[in-house]
Amino acid sequence: MSTGRVAFDSAGIAALPQRVRARMVNSLSGFKSANLVGTADASGRPACCMVSSVVHLGSDPALLGVVFRPPGDDAHNYRNLTESGAFTLSHVTLPFFEAAHQTSARYPEGVSEFEAVGLIPFWHSQDGNRFAAPAVKESPVRIGLKVADDLRLPNRCRFVIGAIQWVDFVAELQAEDGFLDLVAAETMAIGGLDAYHIAERVARLSYAKPDRPLVSRSDFLQGWD
Amino acid sequence: MSTGRVAFDSAGIAALPQRVRARMVNSLSGFKSANLVGTADASGRPACCMVSSVVHLGSDPALLGVVFRPPGDDAHNYRNLTESGAFTLSHVTLPFFEAAHQTSARYPEGVSEFEAVGLIPFWHSQDGNRFAAPAVKESPVRIGLKVADDLRLPNRCRFVIGAIQWVDFVAELQAEDGFLDLVAAETMAIGGLDAYHIAERVARLSYAKPDRPLVSRSDFLQGWD
Repeated sequence: MSTGRVAFDSAGIAALPQRVRARMVNSLSGFKSANLVGTADASGRPACCMVSSVVHLGSDPALLGVVFRPPGDDAHNYRNLTESGAFTLSHVTLPFFEAAHQTSARYPEGVSEFEAVGLIPFWHSQDGNRFAAPAVKESPVRIGLKVADDLRLPNRCRFVIGAIQWVDFVAELQAEDGFLDLVAAETMAIGGLDAYHIAERVARLSYAKPDRPLVSRSDFLQGWD
Repeated sequence: MSTGRVAFDSAGIAALPQRVRARMVNSLSGFKSANLVGTADASGRPACCMVSSVVHLGSDPALLGVVFRPPGDDAHNYRNLTESGAFTLSHVTLPFFEAAHQTSARYPEGVSEFEAVGLIPFWHSQDGNRFAAPAVKESPVRIGLKVADDLRLPNRCRFVIGAIQWVDFVAELQAEDGFLDLVAAETMAIGGLDAYHIAERVARLSYAKPDRPLVSRSDFLQGWD
């Protein structure tokens, strides 16, 4: 693309109408992951909310980060996870992305988003112990996390770091080399505030080294050494 | 999908061979954004590196976060941005994703990844002042940021918070309501460590409210009120 470009400086961005600015700035990071956060309150009542801000932090130990908006009265998922120390993430996929988006509505205290939007809580158990937060039954990739840290960001958002306690996914999604096929999972990618996408894999590329050309593979199952 | 599932607990994840674990855990967050970080050292020598960890933090003020691996000898982009206080992000798109991936090779000190992989530095200027970090000429969406904070994470990774100073994109990507069309931009999404995807938009969904059904629009230019 080499057609005309448009530029904004920080004053120009700040001067935009609030919703236009929100839609534009939310588009700038590129595609965002689509996950449902699952939590439960002290009575075990399930809650969930859509997040587009999950980021990989490390694989040994296995850590993910999630940005939450500044805690307010309606932030019951954030409150639940700080109280219970546990939350889940479930990939949002094509068959239920509209229900997942609808969880972002501000339901009254005491209304479970699961019930309101028609999703089913899944309670992971291990050695007879039920994990303290529900995941989403409909999702092909579900992750249970313990709150490992909770950082306050300069704009009052919270950056919650979760240590992965368990993961559970559809077996056939995994290649021999460990990779999960998110295309086959129908995992969605978010653009801006409200656009939902499916993906088409162009290639898997080999580990980059300075003195070696990249190798590109289209057969994901073959994997890498 | 309702075929057989497989589960790992944290001990099972830790027991996996290192590369298998890395490929699996890197797949768990869902699709990741694909950006090139651009920096310059004190002499103005350009450097860049691939990142899949950019996350939206807020739009007023406009803030993005980027996770960097624990700083080591080869982390010259991280060192550059801490010294200059500036960095850029450029969307990685279909025409140059292989060159972008190749920037992750460990080039010797003094070798510019731009030159090594064949990408062209773009120096944004405003009122005759050149921004202290180069972006990528080939990219349809480029962002200049000032380091606003630099948090140490429990696993020694860094979470760099950038305040957007300028943005510059192909004009026709923007809808009237502010949204940028990442599909038209050919912005890519990453799965795992090495899989690159283009996206197909399924829908834009209206702002969710408890008492109102969602509206789905396929015509992105129409936008929302």
